[in-house]
Amino acid sequence: MYRAPVGEIAHTLKSVAGLGKALEQDRFGDLGEDLVDAILAEAGRFASDEIAPLNEIGDTHGAVLADGAVTTPPGWKELYQSWIAGGWNGLTGPEEFGGQGLPMLLSVATLEMWNSGSLAFGIGPTLTMGAIEALDKHASDDLKAKYLEKLVTGEWMGTMNLTEPQAGSDLNALRARAEPVGDGSYRIFGQKIYITYGEHDFTDNIVHLVLARLPDAPAGTRGISLFLVPKFFVGDDGALGERNDVFCSGLEHKLGIHASPTCTMIYGDGKFGDQPGAIGWLIGEENRGLACMFTMMNNARLAVGMQGVAVAETAYQKALAYANERTQGRAPGYKGEGMSPIVQHPDVARMLMTMKALTQGARAICYSCAEALDMARVTEGDAARAWAERASLITPIAKAFSTDIGMEVASLGVQVHGGMGFIEETGAARLLRDARIAPIYEGTNGIQAIDLVMRKLPLSGGAAVINLIADFKHDAEALRASNSPALDGVADHLDQAIADLESATSYMQAAISDDRKTDALSGATPYLRLFGLTATTAMLARGALADTDAPEAAGRAALARFAAATLAPESRGLAAIATAGVASLSDAAAALA
Amino acid sequence: MYRAPVGEIAHTLKSVAGLGKALEQDRFGDLGEDLVDAILAEAGRFASDEIAPLNEIGDTHGAVLADGAVTTPPGWKELYQSWIAGGWNGLTGPEEFGGQGLPMLLSVATLEMWNSGSLAFGIGPTLTMGAIEALDKHASDDLKAKYLEKLVTGEWMGTMNLTEPQAGSDLNALRARAEPVGDGSYRIFGQKIYITYGEHDFTDNIVHLVLARLPDAPAGTRGISLFLVPKFFVGDDGALGERNDVFCSGLEHKLGIHASPTCTMIYGDGKFGDQPGAIGWLIGEENRGLACMFTMMNNARLAVGMQGVAVAETAYQKALAYANERTQGRAPGYKGEGMSPIVQHPDVARMLMTMKALTQGARAICYSCAEALDMARVTEGDAARAWAERASLITPIAKAFSTDIGMEVASLGVQVHGGMGFIEETGAARLLRDARIAPIYEGTNGIQAIDLVMRKLPLSGGAAVINLIADFKHDAEALRASNSPALDGVADHLDQAIADLESATSYMQAAISDDRKTDALSGATPYLRLFGLTATTAMLARGALADTDAPEAAGRAALARFAAATLAPESRGLAAIATAGVASLSDAAAALA
Repeated sequence: MYRAPVGEIAHTLKSVAGLGKALEQDRFGDLGEDLVDAILAEAGRFASDEIAPLNEIGDTHGAVLADGAVTTPPGWKELYQSWIAGGWNGLTGPEEFGGQGLPMLLSVATLEMWNSGSLAFGIGPTLTMGAIEALDKHASDDLKAKYLEKLVTGEWMGTMNLTEPQAGSDLNALRARAEPVGDGSYRIFGQKIYITYGEHDFTDNIVHLVLARLPDAPAGTRGISLFLVPKFFVGDDGALGERNDVFCSGLEHKLGIHASPTCTMIYGDGKFGDQPGAIGWLIGEENRGLACMFTMMNNARLAVGMQGVAVAETAYQKALAYANERTQGRAPGYKGEGMSPIVQHPDVARMLMTMKALTQGARAICYSCAEALDMARVTEGDAARAWAERASLITPIAKAFSTDIGMEVASLGVQVHGGMGFIEETGAARLLRDARIAPIYEGTNGIQAIDLVMRKLPLSGGAAVINLIADFKHDAEALRASNSPALDGVADHLDQAIADLESATSYMQAAISDDRKTDALSGATPYLRLFGLTATTAMLARGALADTDAPEAAGRAALARFAAATLAPESRGLAAIATAGVASLSDAAAALA
Repeated sequence: MYRAPVGEIAHTLKSVAGLGKALEQDRFGDLGEDLVDAILAEAGRFASDEIAPLNEIGDTHGAVLADGAVTTPPGWKELYQSWIAGGWNGLTGPEEFGGQGLPMLLSVATLEMWNSGSLAFGIGPTLTMGAIEALDKHASDDLKAKYLEKLVTGEWMGTMNLTEPQAGSDLNALRARAEPVGDGSYRIFGQKIYITYGEHDFTDNIVHLVLARLPDAPAGTRGISLFLVPKFFVGDDGALGERNDVFCSGLEHKLGIHASPTCTMIYGDGKFGDQPGAIGWLIGEENRGLACMFTMMNNARLAVGMQGVAVAETAYQKALAYANERTQGRAPGYKGEGMSPIVQHPDVARMLMTMKALTQGARAICYSCAEALDMARVTEGDAARAWAERASLITPIAKAFSTDIGMEVASLGVQVHGGMGFIEETGAARLLRDARIAPIYEGTNGIQAIDLVMRKLPLSGGAAVINLIADFKHDAEALRASNSPALDGVADHLDQAIADLESATSYMQAAISDDRKTDALSGATPYLRLFGLTATTAMLARGALADTDAPEAAGRAALARFAAATLAPESRGLAAIATAGVASLSDAAAALA
């Protein structure tokens, strides 16, 4: 059973992702280390004791649709009520509307814990938080006044409605339409698919954010607007009124996250109200909906990255517990009686160390992304822009690397369990099933890699990426300066990985500026992994160099050495593969015939 | 829907795995190319048209246990009857007992096809074939006369009973016991778990092969004997008699291969018969059961390797079909109207090429293992020993590399489908669920890697591995000699991979002979992958150099180039990781605390 690794989370926040320094500099008002620790401890307790125990029934029972209503699994509605009663939904919400306005660093740390408890639970609030942010930044004062407070408390939940059957990764192809009513509202028509928590029984109202086209809107993504469409209308007194013309027509039967209802939503079918059309209100400007949606989407991408970290952590804990308990064979050098715990076998230890190193690396990357978001908010001018660019640069790595390793770690977790891993009751397989969605939703990992290479490497003429790599070099220098025997050899491995990352980065930048776009696109995915592994090596070393008197210091150093010796060397091949270019795909059409 | 890739299978058999040369040299009696092609075509038809359509219902319905009887999914019993009616079960069975005595090369090719149709179906006959081989090699004439013919036709099926709750990878810990009755038979007592097709309705008798200990047997694996335990006794006239004291007490609820009943078998509980004890007969000598079982197990390992290839092939076909049909965005250089098929996007093409290259590489490795088994049978003296050692050397690679890439390819297949990949009805997720068992059963892939390094590298003082690597060097020389523009650059990549494999091999050999066993054990898994990727690169090139006038030649060359440019370069890191030694795991206990 999952126990939140509060100590390691706090260490990563403070010593790797810079929360410690930020607190010293009073960057976050009167937030102090005591409050941070108290929040983490209480979140850890809630995730471990309240959420995690309901994950199995969530999986086996699933969400159920009947007569247009979705029932969540037994105990889940009460769990949600208990979670919002704890004030967790409003952690980072705007203070003006009842939120606590705390840093993203705390948000990602707590998000990790909710999702370690259950991915199917954690994804719901993520969407509400996105809706809060989009409304806070782009909506009219009237809409804010009517909806924000209840979204911040969690009394209502929010959704994101982008995908249509013909429009997944390519939002150009959206067809949902919005007709002006004349009173400032619009009638929305269309079908949306894959809508997470599109319908459920957690809350008595649901606030849908829906992308649709106005009449005569330009084609493509410059003709998309964003609308707020409530499930029930809200009176000026805040009371719920009539049902709007939107309903859930189906739930997907999915590989995992069964408790999370994945809905097909029908807007404007005439099922409710006097005439067809779901009534919605414009958020932001006409035809600028995608920009508003990206406000939600970037944070949602980081949140999905946290799901990768979260499922990896749970899979690691489960596998480690099993490996300590299960005995088979006699490991070399084992001194005990009879069979050894399998953790003593080098190959099993290798799997577990790989799981822990990847988890810890992805965690550090994601938290660093949150740090950049926070610093962008509390700084100004060039500094703010540089931090914002850093967040923008790290986001696709945080999303794709973390969710890729989420699958990798969950699969290793099954393997450590041997035959038991394939049996559903053990729970290891469930984590693998749950983990599989994260590389897909909120922009597939292929899309993330393309975003990294095509849009993020060019930021500030390449300065953003150069600055980030400079931080890794600083880690290497700190390693050498420390002369720490416990981290012997790590600097050499890190140097090599950085050199490989730099050469691949130069290749990508040249390919983009020389209009050899397909060369960059062909190697984007291995390039992203190269970035993630180099960051992992650097950040594990950074964490191991901090707080060296702690009881955990020897373990952190061992993990940093392991990562340097067995993950960093992948950089050699990855740099070659990332720069193989489109030539490696020549005649692919013949090969794929 | 799966279509058996008969052309590519035949090409790999003949031009990569040496069937062409063997036929030219009349190695397999009067077997000729026409018969080979006819068998492959008919097997392909059966797998595509008869097995594959029943896979979905197999998954959704599953095998069901009630009152000790297991019912397979609707249509499955008829499928099995139709399959044995086609004579497929006896393809490689001994001619003396009605088998066709055909080469293993044909067996693995047809096994691949059955398993591409359905892993849950394909695994059953594999166990019968193992039982046939163990009986043929080790059983008394009486037992052979009574059981072999009906096992060869498939009228009865066989099982392997090794695992007990406390004894999985470590058979030393087996507790099932056998007491001599005095008439040459034994009473067997004990519980066996994870028994594939331990109970079912395909056949009216089931022949269990069971490992158990005699009274006063030595401890450990030198005290294990193998017994034949029929579900129903067989009279001297071949008629079925009373029920033996063995039954299925439970089925596992598994992640995948739902149609394959995974049984807990109870021997000697007194449920049937006058007094407790399942009656069995010794196969081979007392306390030599493990040697007999290994006869089954080595071929079962190769068969499981074929499952990896099989599921990868199906996943590839499914993803390719989807990528040709689904349109999103506009790929660079796309000339058509509107959105492009996603296969045109470089990142999607990269995924599909990776899937195909890994599948084809694993296929070639497995078929080469079958070639070695066949050649060991038809040659004599030193040649036979060298071929047998080669088979022995390749077996763990065939099992582990193929099943690892089976998961990798199935997961990429889900990714190519985007959101649809996570929806069960699409079928991509089912392949991922099914694929997950293969790296676990018949010896986990970690056990395979240890077997490769500790037992196989030392064969003939290292000559076996040196000879195999020499074949890869020969491929590199042939590439250079061909001067083929279509294979430009492949030789360089292959040379580098071979050099990395050689240096890692030397490290492993030195580690073993210097008694630095833990160094070898720590890097065994990455070493095995290094071996698999190098073999893939060499064998794809070998295939591309053959039959260059064929319409498929351009595609084969493109795939070989892709593998050389994007898979072979992993060798650089893998060699470093494989040779990082136990030092990389130092203080693992602190890190895993």
